[in-house]
Amino acid sequence: MSEAKVDYTLYLVTDRELLGERVLEDCIELAIQGGVTLVQLREKSLSTLKFLQLAIRVKEITSHYHIPLIINDRLDIVLAADADGLHVGQDDLPMLKARELFPNKIIGVSASTLEEALLAQQQGADYLGVGAVFRTTTKSDAPEVSLDQLALIKRSVSIPVVAIGGINRTNLQQVMETGVDGVSVVSAILAQENILKSTKMLREILRK
Amino acid sequence: MSEAKVDYTLYLVTDRELLGERVLEDCIELAIQGGVTLVQLREKSLSTLKFLQLAIRVKEITSHYHIPLIINDRLDIVLAADADGLHVGQDDLPMLKARELFPNKIIGVSASTLEEALLAQQQGADYLGVGAVFRTTTKSDAPEVSLDQLALIKRSVSIPVVAIGGINRTNLQQVMETGVDGVSVVSAILAQENILKSTKMLREILRK
Repeated sequence: MSEAKVDYTLYLVTDRELLGERVLEDCIELAIQGGVTLVQLREKSLSTLKFLQLAIRVKEITSHYHIPLIINDRLDIVLAADADGLHVGQDDLPMLKARELFPNKIIGVSASTLEEALLAQQQGADYLGVGAVFRTTTKSDAPEVSLDQLALIKRSVSIPVVAIGGINRTNLQQVMETGVDGVSVVSAILAQENILKSTKMLREILRK
Repeated sequence: MSEAKVDYTLYLVTDRELLGERVLEDCIELAIQGGVTLVQLREKSLSTLKFLQLAIRVKEITSHYHIPLIINDRLDIVLAADADGLHVGQDDLPMLKARELFPNKIIGVSASTLEEALLAQQQGADYLGVGAVFRTTTKSDAPEVSLDQLALIKRSVSIPVVAIGGINRTNLQQVMETGVDGVSVVSAILAQENILKSTKMLREILRK
């Protein structure tokens, strides 16, 4: 799958801690039905076996809806679950190494400065996750990126840019006005009581 | 590298928490100089980037001494650091999946029952790590395996068997009498003040 075919409009990044009693797989399916175009599975505490088993179950759902599944950080899980791509942060596998090991998979990189963005593009990233645009409780140590910086990064690269960090229905339009290709959300979907409806409301704003 | 060329006699498994102020790379080099024949890098808390950087540095040392480097659990690190093999526990990547992704690398499996040992061999494991033979503080949740069970497992499989768990100079001879191909140690090398001398003493007992 090349990045040309990927729709970055509404990119769900998972966080099981937001779900309460709900099952992640069900939440992902509802989010896809509501209009999510891409899913990133992010797990920091599961054993490799449990992460893989979860990734295989999620892959069944995303494949059913023809939505790409990206795995955060863990190239071993991408390979073992045959996911569509890998997302790496600045503390993860270096982009050059990831591209060498993964010539044909989607690779996204987190960037919070113009320098990181340009370097990732030069090293073969398929897309950039840029943020945190707003304060976020799901990743409190994320460096902040202003909307002006976000717009500058978008103008300076040719690969798709997805904004991330504290994006919700109240600030979504403002973020899209920077020209980005899409937004990544965690809480704005997974922390909501009605995931289907919340996702549809985000899609509605994105359509404008 | 095929398992036929691997010497499993004295297999060092790392644990940075035992080192105090010492640097892991230096400790590994001393252990190799003392007679370690195989090194497994085991890290459960580093970021992927830091784990990879450490693995690359350790690989330089093991390559220099022509000692294979095995990575615990993380197939992504094996690939990115071009290590010689992967060791998987029962909560890690399933053996069949590891073999599918790694047709030509060494793959070891932790087993604590005859059933797990036979299954791992059938699924293509190159060697088995069997234990914990004695109580161990470095992995307190490891199931226990008696010396009789260890001997039974050794007799029942054709691949090399390495005993692990609380093995030190006082019980090493007893363990070798079960017929195993080697022993894995952590504390008996890395928790010792003089790593070179401690490793040589283990080698001395193994020579008998």
